Amino acid sequence: MGNRGSKQQVDGRRQSVRGRATATAVPKDTKKAYEMLCERLKELSALGGISGLLGWDEMVMMPAGAANSRGAQKSALAGVMYDKKTDPTLGALLETLRAAPAGALDPVAAAVVRDASKDYVKATALPKELAQRIARLETDAYPAWVKAKQASDFSIFAPFLKEWVEVNKEKARLIDPSAPAYDVLLDDFEKGLTSARLDAVFAQAREGLVPLIAAIKSRGAKLDDSWTHGEFDVEAQAALCKKGAEAQAALCKKVWAGGEAQAALCKKIALDLGFDTEHGRLDVSVHPFTGGAHPTDVRMTTRFKKEDVMEGITGAIHETGHALYEQGRNLEYDGLPVNSALSMGVHESQSLLWERMVGLSKPFAAYLLPLLKERFPATFGSATPQQLYEAENTIREPSLIRVESDEVTYPLHIILRYELERGLMDGSVQVDDIPRLWNEKMQSYLGATPPSDAKGCLQDVHWSAGLFGYFPTYTLGAMYATQIYAAAAKDIPGLEDKIKAGDFAPLKSWLNVKIHKLGSLHASGDELMTAVTGGPLDPSVFLTYLKNKYTELYKL
Amino acid sequence: MGNRGSKQQVDGRRQSVRGRATATAVPKDTKKAYEMLCERLKELSALGGISGLLGWDEMVMMPAGAANSRGAQKSALAGVMYDKKTDPTLGALLETLRAAPAGALDPVAAAVVRDASKDYVKATALPKELAQRIARLETDAYPAWVKAKQASDFSIFAPFLKEWVEVNKEKARLIDPSAPAYDVLLDDFEKGLTSARLDAVFAQAREGLVPLIAAIKSRGAKLDDSWTHGEFDVEAQAALCKKGAEAQAALCKKVWAGGEAQAALCKKIALDLGFDTEHGRLDVSVHPFTGGAHPTDVRMTTRFKKEDVMEGITGAIHETGHALYEQGRNLEYDGLPVNSALSMGVHESQSLLWERMVGLSKPFAAYLLPLLKERFPATFGSATPQQLYEAENTIREPSLIRVESDEVTYPLHIILRYELERGLMDGSVQVDDIPRLWNEKMQSYLGATPPSDAKGCLQDVHWSAGLFGYFPTYTLGAMYATQIYAAAAKDIPGLEDKIKAGDFAPLKSWLNVKIHKLGSLHASGDELMTAVTGGPLDPSVFLTYLKNKYTELYKL
Repeated sequence: MGNRGSKQQVDGRRQSVRGRATATAVPKDTKKAYEMLCERLKELSALGGISGLLGWDEMVMMPAGAANSRGAQKSALAGVMYDKKTDPTLGALLETLRAAPAGALDPVAAAVVRDASKDYVKATALPKELAQRIARLETDAYPAWVKAKQASDFSIFAPFLKEWVEVNKEKARLIDPSAPAYDVLLDDFEKGLTSARLDAVFAQAREGLVPLIAAIKSRGAKLDDSWTHGEFDVEAQAALCKKGAEAQAALCKKVWAGGEAQAALCKKIALDLGFDTEHGRLDVSVHPFTGGAHPTDVRMTTRFKKEDVMEGITGAIHETGHALYEQGRNLEYDGLPVNSALSMGVHESQSLLWERMVGLSKPFAAYLLPLLKERFPATFGSATPQQLYEAENTIREPSLIRVESDEVTYPLHIILRYELERGLMDGSVQVDDIPRLWNEKMQSYLGATPPSDAKGCLQDVHWSAGLFGYFPTYTLGAMYATQIYAAAAKDIPGLEDKIKAGDFAPLKSWLNVKIHKLGSLHASGDELMTAVTGGPLDPSVFLTYLKNKYTELYKL
Repeated sequence: MGNRGSKQQVDGRRQSVRGRATATAVPKDTKKAYEMLCERLKELSALGGISGLLGWDEMVMMPAGAANSRGAQKSALAGVMYDKKTDPTLGALLETLRAAPAGALDPVAAAVVRDASKDYVKATALPKELAQRIARLETDAYPAWVKAKQASDFSIFAPFLKEWVEVNKEKARLIDPSAPAYDVLLDDFEKGLTSARLDAVFAQAREGLVPLIAAIKSRGAKLDDSWTHGEFDVEAQAALCKKGAEAQAALCKKVWAGGEAQAALCKKIALDLGFDTEHGRLDVSVHPFTGGAHPTDVRMTTRFKKEDVMEGITGAIHETGHALYEQGRNLEYDGLPVNSALSMGVHESQSLLWERMVGLSKPFAAYLLPLLKERFPATFGSATPQQLYEAENTIREPSLIRVESDEVTYPLHIILRYELERGLMDGSVQVDDIPRLWNEKMQSYLGATPPSDAKGCLQDVHWSAGLFGYFPTYTLGAMYATQIYAAAAKDIPGLEDKIKAGDFAPLKSWLNVKIHKLGSLHASGDELMTAVTGGPLDPSVFLTYLKNKYTELYKL
């Protein structure tokens, strides 16, 4: 439906021209072959953009009763994309281009062929039987995990986790028998990283963090953020009510639409940071996310809690970081893998750089406080930037739950998961031992033991989708972020004063040039860090940032 | 982008199963072949739904700067759909099924094979050269028409119209050399209708309408609707301001969001008529339309004018009629052509039945007036249902412009265009004679001559897109509507009292069963009319409705 007019026929007919041109043979000429490759990759990129829009619409706009039909649409599109990703002609083109004489491809073209070849291998490696087994497991493991978590009984989920270990080992072997299984899976999320390298990085981080957390804990909870909680939309009303008719209007808008006071504030912040509404949308959704169809069509969402204005703001800053990366992608290479994010870790580095390096900093508190005073005077009217800064960086009792933890304890939640899933893949950890090992590591890293599997090894959904290698990207992002920000601070004179003044343009422009526009040109996060900061990923920068910050905050 | 999570990979991998199953040979067994056909048609339907969503998003949600990327996405999807619509395996399946012994297919399956075969022929008939020529013409003819209309100079557009005549003749010949060219084009919009039949229908309508219009004209403009115009959002504010704080809130919402008073009213009406928000959305757009992705995901839009509340309401009722048809499609045959609208004329019959038979009726005025009084007391406070009814049915001087004309004069605008485009296709009319013939017909049918080509033969965009056979569906819809409504009035006791009471459910349910659920089961509008009303399309029902209504209104 939706095509009662003529427009669709027009598009369809226009396509008849291209439609017929697809069955051509593979040219031996490198330039021609590369052009043909790019045409196919751009088509896949456009279909991927449609897939992104479907996902956004489902979360933000779709009527509840359309779930089944949307499922059929996503499935049909995924089928089309699968067929194109595994088209033998695509494989033949890539083979031709990999065989091209050195220097025949410029660095960008070489990166395109490198990443497209990897994708082709991954897309074609699985035999039908394994693909079916994985599809079944994706369907069955999630409800089992939900049931296990509700009953807080790991044994319900264990059989499915065992099968995920098996199929992931088999999948990895088929994709690259020469590499450790975990490394092959990791590459899906963090291009070019190996578990050997990650072992060293995380070990160094762990050794720095455990004593720091112990020290903070021993100081007792000195800081307090309870004063920042309240009833913010109600408060916005009260404040505005004092100001007569015009303010009444603003007030009423807030009363009616709910969360509008916070929404308006978060929108102002996102725009101040550089979000471009000419090439994106801001909406509200249950879970904040950044998606969309293209760098010129970035759809970002936020959410708000009546009682906690800071959570909405932090989420908005985080998503803005993702959105600026997407909007900053290099349109010169539009539709080619080289213009997309290098990895999930690097993507997370952009959200965390803005959320933590900027959003949780002293100068940002000086920028934010007047905005809060204006809208929520009862709570913030008499606060100082230092008080806001301390409240934003309060560390409570180490949380047992990853998603509730702060920037100091979060990495240990990740490292714990990494050590377990890596062990599952190399056989040094057995599925049945997960609950015990989980709790032991929690105790030794964070000094706390989960009272139940529900609050322990069953808390996250990731393993039920067979996602091994995904967790590390969260903490890699946090580490990249500190290192990138340090380089920016060197390059941009008076960066902190600019942030204090709400002038974020210099930092955004610097990131556009140094990170966003580079996309996937480099083969790994280490390569990108070397290009941007002069050296590979260095956990000590992250540790130093945390030590300095919390030593001062907690007078350690 | 939009796939930083795992969901898309999951979909993609799940698809690997289906993806590999597509290259199977065509089974000779009828049942198996039909199942395979349905699988392919459902996939095409799902992709068509995505295309519908892209169209809606572009009109309602998409950021302005995303136009180019959206173009690439639509083009990629159209290319995919073209390849699937022209897949030889699809053709072979249809051939097998057409060769099946009589009775091997039930009526629904037979209708599916009938319509799918027709679509396959149309999709595969054009050689690449002609497809390219049409694509070029679609690109070039539109700006030429814009230029010609601005300069009010038909000669600028004439060469493109000449080429459209040529390519449409050639296209029609390739699709079905045995039928008149115009009939082949007409079939795209009004399945199963011939120009011979249409000649008779429109001739009868013309002969009845011309004297009726002359009679109304000679009575002079007795009715007046000027009193229904005003400043409605402002008025809503004023009304609400009387009611203190709480109303202030409502008021301010209106001030801020604009058109909210009207939007709320139109939404209430759409919901009263039966629009299901569990399976659809209501939004605002520049041009009202009904689109979406599926019968369970119908996206309808409206628009409002500050000075004319009735236009917004009429548009909302019209679109609701389209939306109820879409939401009423038979999900038992989900994804098969048999569950989609029989034709554009039948689709228009549903919008016009609600807009005119219901929305412009006396009982509806009794339902609507209290809603208007409540919201816009200054304008409607002292009005009677009869006054509202008369205002809604005011006929001004016959307009030269189709889209501005009323239900009495509108058909003649259509008949004029039909006579000309039909003549162009059979050679009895030459492109260069269009302006003269247009003006002569306007004079003899409506007693008025356009002062310029811009207000005459250049007023509509349709011919610049090569759409011949599209115009008749507007008036066929109006005729179907009167005939269908007459049948409903026979079947539903006290229908007018129910409408008066705002109880539209019986009519909606009747249409669900008699029209919506039947979809494309029948081969033509005449067949559908026979099934629903006991006889084929009969213009006299339409003429009688207009004569009775306006004889009373204008005391003819």
